[in-house]
Amino acid sequence: MITKEAIIAAHERIQSLIHRTPVLSSEGIDALVGCSVFFKCENFQKVGAFKMRGAANAVMQLSDEEKAKGVATHSSGNHAAALARAATKLGIKSYIVMPSNAPEIKKKAVKSYGGEIIECEPNLQARETTLQSVVDRTGATFIHPYDNEAVIIGQATCAKELIEDVADLDIIMSPVGGGGLLSGTALSTHYWAPSATVIAGEPTGADDAARSMAAGEIIPMVGPQTIADGLLTSLGQRTFPIIQEYVNEIITVSDEEIITAMKIIYERLKIVIETSCAVPFAALIQQKERFQGKRVGIILTGGNVDLKRLGELFS
Amino acid sequence: MITKEAIIAAHERIQSLIHRTPVLSSEGIDALVGCSVFFKCENFQKVGAFKMRGAANAVMQLSDEEKAKGVATHSSGNHAAALARAATKLGIKSYIVMPSNAPEIKKKAVKSYGGEIIECEPNLQARETTLQSVVDRTGATFIHPYDNEAVIIGQATCAKELIEDVADLDIIMSPVGGGGLLSGTALSTHYWAPSATVIAGEPTGADDAARSMAAGEIIPMVGPQTIADGLLTSLGQRTFPIIQEYVNEIITVSDEEIITAMKIIYERLKIVIETSCAVPFAALIQQKERFQGKRVGIILTGGNVDLKRLGELFS
Repeated sequence: MITKEAIIAAHERIQSLIHRTPVLSSEGIDALVGCSVFFKCENFQKVGAFKMRGAANAVMQLSDEEKAKGVATHSSGNHAAALARAATKLGIKSYIVMPSNAPEIKKKAVKSYGGEIIECEPNLQARETTLQSVVDRTGATFIHPYDNEAVIIGQATCAKELIEDVADLDIIMSPVGGGGLLSGTALSTHYWAPSATVIAGEPTGADDAARSMAAGEIIPMVGPQTIADGLLTSLGQRTFPIIQEYVNEIITVSDEEIITAMKIIYERLKIVIETSCAVPFAALIQQKERFQGKRVGIILTGGNVDLKRLGELFS
Repeated sequence: MITKEAIIAAHERIQSLIHRTPVLSSEGIDALVGCSVFFKCENFQKVGAFKMRGAANAVMQLSDEEKAKGVATHSSGNHAAALARAATKLGIKSYIVMPSNAPEIKKKAVKSYGGEIIECEPNLQARETTLQSVVDRTGATFIHPYDNEAVIIGQATCAKELIEDVADLDIIMSPVGGGGLLSGTALSTHYWAPSATVIAGEPTGADDAARSMAAGEIIPMVGPQTIADGLLTSLGQRTFPIIQEYVNEIITVSDEEIITAMKIIYERLKIVIETSCAVPFAALIQQKERFQGKRVGIILTGGNVDLKRLGELFS
């Protein structure tokens, strides 16, 4: 069981590597949805995503011996950039296994943060065997993107800040992919805003978390199809039990609903967010009658977009 | 002569109608350009643009008799939205003359803020005769978008905040269209950061300010051609003398340079800005050798973009 004290200690530990991100709101958005929405802007976080929190917490707890050998992970996304940056800031090596078809912008980010990229075929098996060979060769510690206790604890610091900055939240929302952020959010809500409800948003085309909750066991995602490309992964052994216990509901949304929500955030908040970011707000819009008059905190997870791809979405 | 005290009084006057907008910076951007850049984010201002400051200051100084008859302006842009909002907030009427081909998003904004739109043919003469007939009919006070002392004083509060929030700026930059913001910025720099240099950015395709400065007299803009559609207007009788006296230099930039600068701001700062906004940063990038090691404040003027148009730019 992850304790309150563990989250507090993590939050202190990672201060030097993270920003305390702002919470934004908009009269226009509140009028549109009929409730008060507080957006926790992790798109402004270091490396442009909340993943910096978990990666920093995991890397900072390694022993000197472990640090000497470096860290490794498989990720084509923000965890890769975050792990590379956290490692470089602490003067240690990072090995990032990425599928050969990962977006150029993600590869560039990892390199700019000092990570060493090892490419593999774009399939699960190649990813795992390549990672294993890197770990065997270097002795690096594998830091899983979400199924890792230190990572979950790090991500929990985000909702902790949101709760500290906005009083009396009725509902706290995040998206769910592998569940690292959602489980951390649920834990911090349990400890610091116990009367608040935790609701996740999930793309219909990658709805393994909703189906796992309904079934009472992890149902892995096979062939996800959604524009929310940060939410394709399945729940993990460590994230699922926390989500089962502390998350009240998962609302699924279509790609069309995600794009609509994303456009509203661009137009009203004037900030750049990833498609995956817009998922919980899309869930709120879909069921806005339920949210009337409530105070809702939403974690906006990241802002690393490929402008070309964005252009296609908006055109 | 606009005094320091007039700007201080305006700043106090308009507090209830404006946000104190944040100043953002980015390690990545600083590394890229070799200086410390502080972005004053007026894209987060009420109505999404600095124009709220000048409009609020102008409207709040009207007599009760003038207020009873309302205000009028011609603008297809942010001044229209700002004037409508300021007027509505004070319970007075606003009449906005807009060309029939103005972007739908701008018309919607004006209506949502409570302004009454009067459409006219998209040319200068129709705009002026339509405005005159509105003023004749209603008795409304005409609030010019920039060639108005109360408006210039209102815009000056933006650089005042920037100087208060960031110590020891070497250079302060803004774009220049009609010169309302630039003249206000130059005045506040003169009063509160007298050792700083004021440099404006201007699109090559609408370079009347650069040419007017060189000629020592106002050279009106004829047939401007630039994607920076907030900067098409010519300098005014009230803005030009201030710019002549207090602005050190105007750097002109191509549309291509503007788009490059805009993309960097989207990617690094994760914020939504208008094309016109990116002009001073484009000027900095163009001549970055001159800015090495300096502390540079840049006013980002607004964030009201048509996402469809944005999509085309990024595709």
